[in-house]
Amino acid sequence: MSNAQMQPVLDHIDADFDNSLERLFALLRIKSISADPAFAGDCKAAAEHLARDIATLGFSAEVRPTAGHPAIVAKNNDKANGSTDGRPHVLFYGHYDVQPVDPLNLWHRPPFEPVVTDHADGRKIIVARGAEDDKGQLMTFIEACRAWKKVTGSLPVDVTILIEGEEEVGSKNFVPFMEAIKDELKADFALVCDTGMWDPNTPAITTSLRGLMYDEVTIKAANRDLHSGVFGGGARNPIRVLTKILGGLFDDNGRITIPGFYDGVNDLPPDILAQWKNLNLTPESFLKPIGLSIPAGEKDRLLIEQISSRPTCDINGIIGGYTGEGSKTVIPAEASAKVSFRLVEGQDPQKIKKAFRDYVTARLPGDCKAVFTEHSSGAAIALDWNMKPLAAARRALTEEWGREALLVGSGASIPIVADFKRTLGLDSLLIGFGLDDDNIHSPNEKYDLKSFHKGIRSWARILAALAEAPR
Amino acid sequence: MSNAQMQPVLDHIDADFDNSLERLFALLRIKSISADPAFAGDCKAAAEHLARDIATLGFSAEVRPTAGHPAIVAKNNDKANGSTDGRPHVLFYGHYDVQPVDPLNLWHRPPFEPVVTDHADGRKIIVARGAEDDKGQLMTFIEACRAWKKVTGSLPVDVTILIEGEEEVGSKNFVPFMEAIKDELKADFALVCDTGMWDPNTPAITTSLRGLMYDEVTIKAANRDLHSGVFGGGARNPIRVLTKILGGLFDDNGRITIPGFYDGVNDLPPDILAQWKNLNLTPESFLKPIGLSIPAGEKDRLLIEQISSRPTCDINGIIGGYTGEGSKTVIPAEASAKVSFRLVEGQDPQKIKKAFRDYVTARLPGDCKAVFTEHSSGAAIALDWNMKPLAAARRALTEEWGREALLVGSGASIPIVADFKRTLGLDSLLIGFGLDDDNIHSPNEKYDLKSFHKGIRSWARILAALAEAPR
Repeated sequence: MSNAQMQPVLDHIDADFDNSLERLFALLRIKSISADPAFAGDCKAAAEHLARDIATLGFSAEVRPTAGHPAIVAKNNDKANGSTDGRPHVLFYGHYDVQPVDPLNLWHRPPFEPVVTDHADGRKIIVARGAEDDKGQLMTFIEACRAWKKVTGSLPVDVTILIEGEEEVGSKNFVPFMEAIKDELKADFALVCDTGMWDPNTPAITTSLRGLMYDEVTIKAANRDLHSGVFGGGARNPIRVLTKILGGLFDDNGRITIPGFYDGVNDLPPDILAQWKNLNLTPESFLKPIGLSIPAGEKDRLLIEQISSRPTCDINGIIGGYTGEGSKTVIPAEASAKVSFRLVEGQDPQKIKKAFRDYVTARLPGDCKAVFTEHSSGAAIALDWNMKPLAAARRALTEEWGREALLVGSGASIPIVADFKRTLGLDSLLIGFGLDDDNIHSPNEKYDLKSFHKGIRSWARILAALAEAPR
Repeated sequence: MSNAQMQPVLDHIDADFDNSLERLFALLRIKSISADPAFAGDCKAAAEHLARDIATLGFSAEVRPTAGHPAIVAKNNDKANGSTDGRPHVLFYGHYDVQPVDPLNLWHRPPFEPVVTDHADGRKIIVARGAEDDKGQLMTFIEACRAWKKVTGSLPVDVTILIEGEEEVGSKNFVPFMEAIKDELKADFALVCDTGMWDPNTPAITTSLRGLMYDEVTIKAANRDLHSGVFGGGARNPIRVLTKILGGLFDDNGRITIPGFYDGVNDLPPDILAQWKNLNLTPESFLKPIGLSIPAGEKDRLLIEQISSRPTCDINGIIGGYTGEGSKTVIPAEASAKVSFRLVEGQDPQKIKKAFRDYVTARLPGDCKAVFTEHSSGAAIALDWNMKPLAAARRALTEEWGREALLVGSGASIPIVADFKRTLGLDSLLIGFGLDDDNIHSPNEKYDLKSFHKGIRSWARILAALAEAPR
């Protein structure tokens, strides 16, 4: 069925692309920042907007409450035609929530007023918070479904769409929600569109993901802020304590010094390492666009290992004392830092959390205490490279882009992939069209217009390919 | 003349005290925060208010523009009576500007709505930003002058009052202003009311002050904020760089590791050290009220040395990355810290600044740069313990408080004292009524009602004593 209809579907995608873009813009205009309670109403509005939009495809689409921001569950209604029994059933996942926009002054335009503009090198780009992560990405799939439905009246496979609103804040309420409705989420495997390409012309399927343990530590000393003229030299300064502890997290070779941190971490198999070496990821290509030139990780590792197969630690935020304009001679009562660890296979997030907290606590001087807050944690994922639908999806991507789709490891964490396996028993296919220069989580986030357009076409081809893949 | 009139003046101070308090409150209600440009109008209002108030004493009092917040210059007009030739002439100094009030949520009451309330231990206290530093302190002198004028029609000595509005931000514009009008500021010596007592019952004259070098450093790495999932492990993290550098500022004995930092620093003379040992400043008495128990400075020094005669370093503020609620997996483009050094005799602020900046720069990894901003600097001061008016003032304080006034070193910096010497050729007598638990520069700043009341009485006595002191 599918292949004969492929070209008309692709043609429709091309013909309707301006409308696809306008539908994406409508979603991008909603300020669905999940981290800030002030935007809870916008998150709800984004969920309702998406459900309405998906319903226009002929899906049943519902906004479902969770203990946090709502989710969307949508199913295609082809079954009503009696034609779908025995077809593959995919569960598509995306998230409508976006990262906060600060520092706002670094944006060239308001982050929720999307535009298409020219990148410095001439590429057409869509600029807005969420343009890539994940509104642009999830809309590639929805628009592919729209084209199939429009041209053929049905989809090549059964589809359940599941979209959450708390991915950027750790999915704490989404996972129990998913567990509660797992009978509604039965499928053969999951499709996740939240990853990237190898470069602007080379598609990729992500087959491993780093895990994440994100903790916050607050060091407390005196019972109030102090004047450094009166108390300086005599009273404990929590910023000094915090910088001393954090400053010791790395040795001179860039290795993390927390005892036991590397326990269970294995080197890459020699054949994979050889394959990665051939990819020739250079500081010139990877770091120069962000103004850097020297890989900052473990000195005895390849750059590609540093960013995808090795565990890391980053201090994502730090604050204490007077941070306004000018000066204030204060010794603050407390100082805090947000610290996250990217984890690889073999590392247990809970053990890493304990090791980090023990490390901090062991280094506290007298009169200080440390208070910890866990923000999120998820183990690393290594997917089965022999998973059957993978070959079909890879072939479809290769056809669309005219280059062989690579199988790559990602440095990022998508904890939901582990949750799909644990809760629903589903493997995930991770396919996305992001690029390293998309500025996700940064000012001036963008998505290449080509990523959006060929992303829609890619999913249209993948849906057809999956229909014919061995189950 | 003076001594016969002393008792009526003191009686008037007691009788008029409620009015003195109301005049202080009127000044405390003005939000004269010098660090924040948003309050420039309030600073001007405070200057105008004070000039009007001082004019009611029969002083010529003028608000004078500077390149920053305005200053006040006021002179008593006793000379019009032809009676003052040959009397001592004192230059009184104070400042009407106050520190910022953040973190506002820790104040129990609005900081610019002064009240008299009960301290936990039963002392009556005045609570407001500036209650002590320096509005409460400077008003003790003004109210003492008022009592003398009211009761006797004149002052025992000639008085010029000089009040500035930029002490809390380094007096950058005030010092050139003072230099420009130095002919108007001729006097025999200066009186500065911006220091403290030894304890709530024991007055003190401060004879040494630590200097201050306050610098800010910003570490810059990538050209934008990055996503730690994509770049973590490969890209330089400026918070990591900053904490590593700041974390190395102290060795395990609490000594500052910046090369050359202690050059020129001498140990206390044995007789002074013996005197200080007798003061028996214990962690119990000094640190317990602020919730601490262990002196945090150089381990081989007495606590009193740590806070008054030894140079120190404090990180007064630090910020970088995401510091809002929740979590964000960002690697920021930059991170910065405000770092100040309390200096002692023998240390040159400019040399210390260079040593600090060299220390930071030498530790920068590749791809990073450091940008520095100097906020203020002033050398330490050691006053002449044999200065003639000192004995007279000490005697007056001892009479008022019924305890011998101590001669002490202060850990704080009052750079204006060096400027008086350099610009006007004046020595300074540093007398004030603050207490260590006044929370200056902190939430819930207070001034003991007793400090305010007996402070006024003290100045009334000191003015009389100075009139009879050898010149």
